[in-house]
Amino acid sequence: MDEVKIIDVKRTILEDNDLDALNLSKELKNKGTLLINLMSSPGSGKTTTLIKTIKCLEDKLSIGVMEADIDSDVDAKKIKEETKAEAIQLHTGGMCHLDASMTREGLSYLDKHDLVFLENVGNLVCPAEFATGASKCVMILAVTEGDDKPLKYPLMFSICDVILINKIDVIEYFDFDMAKVIENIKKINNNAKIIPICAKSGEGILEFSNWINDEVRKWKEEK
Amino acid sequence: MDEVKIIDVKRTILEDNDLDALNLSKELKNKGTLLINLMSSPGSGKTTTLIKTIKCLEDKLSIGVMEADIDSDVDAKKIKEETKAEAIQLHTGGMCHLDASMTREGLSYLDKHDLVFLENVGNLVCPAEFATGASKCVMILAVTEGDDKPLKYPLMFSICDVILINKIDVIEYFDFDMAKVIENIKKINNNAKIIPICAKSGEGILEFSNWINDEVRKWKEEK
Repeated sequence: MDEVKIIDVKRTILEDNDLDALNLSKELKNKGTLLINLMSSPGSGKTTTLIKTIKCLEDKLSIGVMEADIDSDVDAKKIKEETKAEAIQLHTGGMCHLDASMTREGLSYLDKHDLVFLENVGNLVCPAEFATGASKCVMILAVTEGDDKPLKYPLMFSICDVILINKIDVIEYFDFDMAKVIENIKKINNNAKIIPICAKSGEGILEFSNWINDEVRKWKEEK
Repeated sequence: MDEVKIIDVKRTILEDNDLDALNLSKELKNKGTLLINLMSSPGSGKTTTLIKTIKCLEDKLSIGVMEADIDSDVDAKKIKEETKAEAIQLHTGGMCHLDASMTREGLSYLDKHDLVFLENVGNLVCPAEFATGASKCVMILAVTEGDDKPLKYPLMFSICDVILINKIDVIEYFDFDMAKVIENIKKINNNAKIIPICAKSGEGILEFSNWINDEVRKWKEEK
């Protein structure tokens, strides 16, 4: 078989907001607020994972949530209904990701918290390119999306501190090879903590919550 | 319960390539090539759907495929291995979508075909905003992603001529209400043809292929 022809098309959009994100991160350090940027494809289970995680942590930590979406406020409503966290909805006006200035704007509407989750727009591409000021990045890959995703979206997998593999309750109905996906992730990012979870049942959420709790403690100690 | 606070954050990236897309569409009309832009979230089944669809059509039509991805060439390889279509891989250099100029560049590497599929980057946001020159847009929503997606990504659902609801073989394992998603889609886009499919088994693919065949015929007749 002939080799596949590969054409590199030019990148026409680029915005470096790294400096702004670094400044925001320093401000958050001074306030003692750990900001976690949660990313995934649409429908991977970000909001359900957040609800279960907040329930594990809300008696120990004061928690804020910024839900980013192109439109609708269904996610922030769910968080408010089901947890004690303070939740706001950010509308991105059609944009596919949040940058540091939008994140700063959102934070200005939240009280001071130990922990703030930013639920980014459902997208495996753009959110990985734009630093938000978060000091930790977490992504969710659902088994329903396939085990080839680290090969296709390497930047997203490379920048995350934790990779949650969600919907493991239905893994038998999909061609998803857990060993293969872990191998693919490790080639790109050998430092990421990989946690298989089922957000629906809560499986794996305690391990994720314990990691967050440790990170909040370290963030405040290093202040 | 208090109302959820909604903050509109500014749109900072915008590029209008509509004119370029319109010109490309006219060029394709002159050539008698129908270009279909296929979009979805990562892992919704674009490549599997394409393979099954091409197999239905390849004895009647000459078909080209442009597979767009941030990285990797797994999709173009699969298409070449499993169908008679001419397939090339476009690397977007980190970009989250294709625009008309990238599409034109890709087309220049393909022979003249009756039908060209552009498999866009897996993303429900940015590809909806950038016209590619395609005269028909098709999207896939997998039942694994949830029935709320039309509410969250309305632009994508509003611009598509066909919406394929994929992975219906596993619908019983997910909280996915087919009647509700159809209702949500119809509120945004009452003209879209909605076809439930299972790309893996081929269910629904004939109906989709028949629609394409009709569109290719009309495209050439109107020339």
